This record gives sequence, structure tokens and C-alpha cells, in this order.
Amino acid sequence: MIEFKILFCGRSHKYNKEEIDVVIDAMQTAEPLTQGKHLKAFEKKFGEYIGGKNCFAICNATAAIEMAAQLCQFQEGDEVIIPSHTFTASAYPFLKKGAKIVWADIDYETRVITAEKIKKCITENTRAIVVVHLYGYVADMEPIIALAKEHDLIVIEDAAQSIGCEINGKKAGTFGDFGIFSFHSHKNITTLGEGGMLVVKDERKAKIIPQLRHNGHCAFLFEREDYWIPAMGNVDMPEIDGFQFWPNNYCLGEVECALGAVLLDRLDEINEEKRKRAIKFIDALADYPELEFHRIEDNRHNYHLLAASIQNSKRDEFIRKMAKEKGVQCVIQYCPLNRYDLYKKEGFGKADCPNTDRFYDSMVSFPFHHSLREKDLSYLVESTKEILEELREI
Amino acid sequence: MIEFKILFCGRSHKYNKEEIDVVIDAMQTAEPLTQGKHLKAFEKKFGEYIGGKNCFAICNATAAIEMAAQLCQFQEGDEVIIPSHTFTASAYPFLKKGAKIVWADIDYETRVITAEKIKKCITENTRAIVVVHLYGYVADMEPIIALAKEHDLIVIEDAAQSIGCEINGKKAGTFGDFGIFSFHSHKNITTLGEGGMLVVKDERKAKIIPQLRHNGHCAFLFEREDYWIPAMGNVDMPEIDGFQFWPNNYCLGEVECALGAVLLDRLDEINEEKRKRAIKFIDALADYPELEFHRIEDNRHNYHLLAASIQNSKRDEFIRKMAKEKGVQCVIQYCPLNRYDLYKKEGFGKADCPNTDRFYDSMVSFPFHHSLREKDLSYLVESTKEILEELREI
Repeated sequence: MIEFKILFCGRSHKYNKEEIDVVIDAMQTAEPLTQGKHLKAFEKKFGEYIGGKNCFAICNATAAIEMAAQLCQFQEGDEVIIPSHTFTASAYPFLKKGAKIVWADIDYETRVITAEKIKKCITENTRAIVVVHLYGYVADMEPIIALAKEHDLIVIEDAAQSIGCEINGKKAGTFGDFGIFSFHSHKNITTLGEGGMLVVKDERKAKIIPQLRHNGHCAFLFEREDYWIPAMGNVDMPEIDGFQFWPNNYCLGEVECALGAVLLDRLDEINEEKRKRAIKFIDALADYPELEFHRIEDNRHNYHLLAASIQNSKRDEFIRKMAKEKGVQCVIQYCPLNRYDLYKKEGFGKADCPNTDRFYDSMVSFPFHHSLREKDLSYLVESTKEILEELREI
Repeated sequence: MIEFKILFCGRSHKYNKEEIDVVIDAMQTAEPLTQGKHLKAFEKKFGEYIGGKNCFAICNATAAIEMAAQLCQFQEGDEVIIPSHTFTASAYPFLKKGAKIVWADIDYETRVITAEKIKKCITENTRAIVVVHLYGYVADMEPIIALAKEHDLIVIEDAAQSIGCEINGKKAGTFGDFGIFSFHSHKNITTLGEGGMLVVKDERKAKIIPQLRHNGHCAFLFEREDYWIPAMGNVDMPEIDGFQFWPNNYCLGEVECALGAVLLDRLDEINEEKRKRAIKFIDALADYPELEFHRIEDNRHNYHLLAASIQNSKRDEFIRKMAKEKGVQCVIQYCPLNRYDLYKKEGFGKADCPNTDRFYDSMVSFPFHHSLREKDLSYLVESTKEILEELREI
């Protein structure tokens, strides 16, 4: 058992006094404690922040992706193009909703999908593309959207890691037909560990989300004289053009929503701090070209994670030495999904993604949560230098 | 628009200082903020409280029922017997997982399902029974379990409303193969508005719940020398006897779990307070036999809700007068599910449930949240008396 000095932390940031006070206030005053005014306020403020409409707070980002997958209305044989270098929740909801997956490769330098890679995967059965802004970097959306339009494809932007990032002033999650955000414990802002947001472009689809999210509850479509006749409300299957959608319970509570709204005020600051630290970290290691970072100085990257590839074929030795000699817990992320047993069992165990394999097999992800202190970061940099020096000797 | 003095409140109880402090502490110290030590502690304490093992905290009770429905392993044509007098989340998850519903009637007096009513619904295709302990009253489980054993049926106990209640010292949710609990905003204890618990009797099914709940994440089954090789963890399809289960993300955050654990300390007190108030309310209206309550003095009923049927055929006039003349928001619950559009569309629009229809069409549910004050309750009783007197004149 290794005693780590710096853990790869499961929690991204601390809460300040204002955030704690908002939680206490909502605990004491929110009525009801779910599906109330804080939900509405959070969704409205989130929409204003990202510059998009139809934002829906969801219990977690996986559930938000499941709803997006439902709303793709897949039919037998439909394919969805997904990078295999991502978290499993970017992909398996599409299998659950009946689509087949076609794995797309990533661009080696940026570690995200590109229009060029997507193009190679398009067939006559392609119905949707999942673009994952992995590590916090926004993929090149303009050519992807153009390609999607050309082939009439639905674009799902998995912006779970890239909240607040933008290209030319346009925020991640507002390019595609669906935008998905996460407020999970690891993320740059977290609503008590679980939470997500779904952004929906199509007005008809947006209209049924509250019903799809909350057990099929809806209003009666006729005028009622008494609020309890024929019942307090209706329960119905949301429907679009005869396509029916099973409802779910994917509600996010009022306390989380109240907290989420106030965290939005601090998001840009957190993103900027993380980006500045990442640049400092990267630049401090400029003399070690065997460690390749993706260096982006502007707000297209929020450095949710700080990942590098190690070019000396000694990745595992690096992580081992960092752990055993320095007490630093580096990890590797994101195992190409086709290598997992779930995807193998479902028939998606093969992928022609050489960049993905090359990157994943040489990558290292450093501890990089927001609550790391200055001296932790210095220790990380110095430890990295020392271990790289040692590895040069071997 | 009616200005209500006493709303049918969407929030069951207030939080005390200890509960608020637990939330603040978890906010400040929990690491990670989900799937950590508070989850384990809450599940353990919950198991000790109900006297059952294999308890799993879930994001909400609907999700818990969905998992129970998954684990029924339905095959084409399988039927599940469900009372139509219940909340929609007791039923639609079974349709989503491929079963057909057979609606069972309730006992008129107790408003819950009985072995006798279930027996009438059993066919050679019956696979499971959903027993809902509605309003907080535990159905007569001994004959139901005997019947289920005789016919080899799975029993799902929907104990969302009856947490803490018992028959001869055995708690609701521990009789069946699955027990489902809710910590929703309305419930006798609530984990910030959303939350649930799933109790699983079968050890093999219990074993896969964490994986089913958390995106299919699981450990590798082989010994590993390095924590990151071949990946940080595996993602797999949970499987029992070749039957595969799609994973979900149904996690409940650490803050909610920490709060849930401390709320268990206050649950018996809340239940007893509600029961005492209910008995006082019922007895104060003893001279009005046109209002029929279900009066239970022991811990088989927690009076999550206080419902009555009105025997003078003037139910709607009663609710109208209570609203307009007294500013009291009574409601009606639970619309027989077969009357909702969702169930009609799915082919379950008909039910032979005369007691259900008779009860629902004459029932009224009074505001009865825990935070009502003594004077609110007195006002409720006096208002009820006055309106019933008025109705006797008409």
C-alpha cells in the first residue's frame, strides 16, 4: 500500500462561505425541496451564462446523455459516431437506446475528435455524432457542424469537462443539437457531488424534457374548473411525430440547484486559475520534451484535467516512480472504450483508432484539482523533473 | 386564484441544527463528494435500522424501482401484479423493463393490496407482485409472502411512504425480495429533496448493484501489480446466469448520504408525532361518520399522508369549500393509474378494481406535513367540521 502525499483527488474544489450559506438557506426555506424555484433560477442563469436557451438541470450528466440519446429517436441499424477515448457515459447510453457505435479516432495533438476523423466513419446509417470536449478542450466545432449539416446528423456535445470554455466567444455545448454538462464531484464546479445539465436546441424536444425528466407528469391539455378534477395532473408518454419516449425520474434537488446557480459566479475564476496553473506547470517542464502537453493559453481550454503523453516509452516506470518515490498519485485516463468488457460483449470491441491507442498507451494524468496549494504544485513539478531525470539515466 | 392559508405542502419537514451541521461538514470535508464513506455509512446504518442487509442508496426511489424491475429479468409475456391505486413510479418502470401489468384492486378499508386481491390476478405468466404500503400503512405481508412462495413470484415492496413502519417488529421493506424507500421532498425524512434506498434479498443480485448503479464500473477480477494497468478499473455488463443488465448512473451524493444517516436518528420520533397527530385529528372528527379514516394506533402506520373517504357523495363540494371558504388546500391522490394517458397508450387502460374506483372517487387527502403547527392542525379540524356541517344542510 502506497502512502500518497498528493492524491489524484476525487473532489475538484472547496466551497466558500457564500456557497455554504446558499445551501443552508435552501435547506431551511426551499418548499418543495425538488422541482421548485431554484431549479428554474439555475436553468435560467445557466442559459444566460452559456448563451443558450432550453437548459434543463438533471440528476447527473449520464442521465442527461440518456435523454439526448432517447431524443435521437434511433431506429434499427442507426449508427452513432463516438470517440473511444472518453468516459464510458459518453457512449453506453446510445447502446441502451438502440444505436450501434462506430468508434472514431482522436487527433493526436488535441486528444479530441475532428471533422476529418468523423468523416471517415460516416455511412448511410449514421444518425448522430458525439463530440466530447475531453480534458476541458473544445473540439473544432465549425467544420463538425458543417459536416453534420451536410449529412443531416444530430450532434451531441459532451461538454461535461469543458464547462465555460469557448471558441470565438461561443461556449461549448451551444454548437450542437444537444449540450451535456456535468457537476459531478470531479468537475470544475460541483453541485454536492452529483448533477448535470442538458441543453436542447430543438424547441419541440425541449418542450417535453420536463415530462421526460419527471415521471411523465404533465398538465391536462383542457381547461379545468377545479384543480383536483379529474386528477391533480396527468401522466402521459411524451411524444414527437408518433415516436413515444419512456419517461424517467432524473430530477435534481432544489439545494443542488441553488448551489449550482451561485457556483456559476465563480466558474470563470476557477477555470482561469486552473488554466494559469496548467500553463505554469507546462512551461516549468519545457526542458523535458519527452513530456508532451497540450498547451492552450486561452479560454478554449479550462484544464479540468492536466494530461501529458510520455515519449520515452517509460510511462509505466514514470507513474511507478512518482508513486513510490514521490508519493504522487498519477493516473491514466480514458481507457479506449472498445477495450472494456462491456463494449466487447456488445460487439464493439474493435476500433481502428491508432491515435487513441498511441495516446492512451503513453499518457499520464497529473493530480490537478483546484484545491491543490502552490507548494503542492511546486512539489509536483519538482518531482516530475527528478523522475524524468532518473528515467534519462536508465 | 385561491390564496391558501394551509397549503398541501411539497416539503415534509424542517431540518434541525444537527442536520444542517452534518451537511456543512460533509460539504467541507467529503472527498470524493460521491460514492465515498458517507454512502457506506448511510447504507450500513439504514440496514441496522430496518433490520435488513444489502441496502443501497440510490438517487431516487423511481430509479430504485427501475433497478428492481431490471433484476426481475422479465421475458416476453411476463406479468407483474400492481395495485392501480398508487404513484406512477410504482408501475411504469416495470413496463420499461418489458413486463405486462395486471392491475390489482385494493382493500377498501386499508387502501392497500391484499393476498386475496393478488390471488385473483395470478396467471401462468405472473412473475412478480408490487406491494405498495400506501399512505404509510404496511400491507398484510405474511399471507402475501406465502402466496408468492406458492407461485414462485418475486415480491417488490414499495415502502416509499412507510419507512420505519412494521408488523410484529418486522419492518416494511424487509418482507419481499426487494424493498424500495424514498427520501423525496414529501417523505417523512428527505435527503435534500431527492434520494432513495434499494434493499435486495438475493445475494447474487445484491452483489451487482454497485456496478448497476455506477455506470458498470467494477474491479478487474485478476490480481494487478500496478493500479493503472491495464486501466484504472473495468467497465462491464453485470450478468446473472447469462442474463445481462444495462448499467445506469443512479448515484446519490455524499452530502445527501451524510444527512440521511443522521435523519434516521429522528425518524421514529417524526413517525410517532405524525401518528399521534393523525389519531387526534381522526378522533376529533368522530362525530362526523361521513368522513371515513383508516385509524391505526400502532407503528404499522406512520401517517405519511392523512387520507379519508367522504361518504356523502359531496367530496368535490367539500374540497371546493375547504379551498374557497377556509383557504385549506386538500388534494386527491392517487389517481388509478389505468386512467392516465400513459397507461391507456400502453394498453393498460382498463382495470377491474371496484374498491379502487370507489375509494379514489370519494377520497380527500388533508395537508399533513410534519412542520404544521398545533394551531394549523386545530384550524384544519375546525374548518373540516364547519364545512361538513354546511354540507349536511345542503
